[in-house]
Amino acid sequence: MKVRRSDRLIDMTRYLLERPHTLVPLTFFSKRYESAKSSISEDLAIIRRTFAARQTGILETVPGAAGGVRFMPTIGQEEASNFITDMANRLSESDRLLPGGYVYLSDLLGTPEVLRQIGRLIATQYLDQSVDAVMTVATKGIPIAQSVSQYLNVPFVIVRRDSKITEGSTVSVNYVSGSSARIEKMELSKRSLKPGSGVLIVDDFMKAGGTVNGMRGLIEEFGANLVGISVFAEGKFAGDRMVSDYTSLIRVDDVDTKANTLHAVAGNYLDYNHELFGRLREQ
Amino acid sequence: MKVRRSDRLIDMTRYLLERPHTLVPLTFFSKRYESAKSSISEDLAIIRRTFAARQTGILETVPGAAGGVRFMPTIGQEEASNFITDMANRLSESDRLLPGGYVYLSDLLGTPEVLRQIGRLIATQYLDQSVDAVMTVATKGIPIAQSVSQYLNVPFVIVRRDSKITEGSTVSVNYVSGSSARIEKMELSKRSLKPGSGVLIVDDFMKAGGTVNGMRGLIEEFGANLVGISVFAEGKFAGDRMVSDYTSLIRVDDVDTKANTLHAVAGNYLDYNHELFGRLREQ
Repeated sequence: MKVRRSDRLIDMTRYLLERPHTLVPLTFFSKRYESAKSSISEDLAIIRRTFAARQTGILETVPGAAGGVRFMPTIGQEEASNFITDMANRLSESDRLLPGGYVYLSDLLGTPEVLRQIGRLIATQYLDQSVDAVMTVATKGIPIAQSVSQYLNVPFVIVRRDSKITEGSTVSVNYVSGSSARIEKMELSKRSLKPGSGVLIVDDFMKAGGTVNGMRGLIEEFGANLVGISVFAEGKFAGDRMVSDYTSLIRVDDVDTKANTLHAVAGNYLDYNHELFGRLREQ
Repeated sequence: MKVRRSDRLIDMTRYLLERPHTLVPLTFFSKRYESAKSSISEDLAIIRRTFAARQTGILETVPGAAGGVRFMPTIGQEEASNFITDMANRLSESDRLLPGGYVYLSDLLGTPEVLRQIGRLIATQYLDQSVDAVMTVATKGIPIAQSVSQYLNVPFVIVRRDSKITEGSTVSVNYVSGSSARIEKMELSKRSLKPGSGVLIVDDFMKAGGTVNGMRGLIEEFGANLVGISVFAEGKFAGDRMVSDYTSLIRVDDVDTKANTLHAVAGNYLDYNHELFGRLREQ
């Protein structure tokens, strides 16, 4: 049965949103809705226009016989900036400060709406880079990795500090935990990364960068390539950080454990991606 | 500026899909698109029809001054059944069998498309129950909890076996690990659950049910209510399981470590939800 345009638009929107960064041939939609390719092309032009106007993302057309359309989710600079400001305010709430200067994040990193936006922001940064997998370390990086992986539509892999029998053979590296300067060990299931794959490292919180540096070592062990490093929040660190090229959404600046206050501000994400947002605006 | 119907349909679809189980007042859409309420009502009727026809979910109308629309994601019985069959086949791949009869699941539980479907299936089961939070235990239950939490649009909380300074004060319980019959300890950050809240337990794999039983104890400690227990896969267990009322998508039946084979079949999910799927078909 031929499907009306309004129904096609609704179902195509859902279909594309659920499959980011996936090439969908026009013939697929044409069959699905028993409609002419010319009608499908018109539908897609409308969706492209609305997605651009609402800064939902880019609907890219790939011409030719092997072509189709590909949806790439993005976030607009203003929405990104508002979200970061909101998160910085949330992090600055004094009851988040834990003994030792740690910051309680589990509520935010367990809220679907927050994770959705973190995923959109980080995925936007790596929009046109060749990411084959998102990597993080258990436990608190997992929700971020999962959300980014969803928006980039690639798998995520979880590095562990404790050995688990349910992972099979693993590859392990030693690393220096920056805060405590102790030697630790982390490992990843052997079958989780292919040589040559592009890997994006994400984590919830970075201080000295020791953990992130350990993951970098693991990527090397697997013969894979580091594409980038993005963290939700970075803390202040007195001394040389082990990682220099990274982005953070939030920076926790002043932690005063005596007065029980902390001050969080925007990280370097917006500055780092200034040009990218300029290009996105023009599209 | 007034927005055309086609653009409204596309943007409303995205807006609703991103906010499941959330009441959106008609006035919100009316303002967003500078369109009359009557036009918005017509749009929503079209979306409702398409969502029903494609088994995307239910678009419920709540009448009255405080009313609006609420999107509840569902999955059709056939799609659910196909997914379960596919997963049972994937689990039966012989190279998943690890020493000790464990099953390697990390690849599946790190794939966005798989997690999306697991989340949809489990969220469909609890469609009209009052779930305030999804609970799981670190590490491998987390991706499932996150996906379910996204479709139900409620937070998820992570129980830990190891104490972490970044969680603040915790409540802990002892539990009997069913497989090893050892006494273990698990804990949850004190501020993560409110008394009286409805909690859905999810996990990746259940054998004797000791871990799930521990979480049940934690829910009691918090004065919260258990709404249900759903696991991705259950294994065979010789003896009395500590948990009886639960659903599983997959059941791992025969594990032959000598021949290096395992056989996975559909769990009780479809049978358990037979009536629910009947009701969904009629809607």
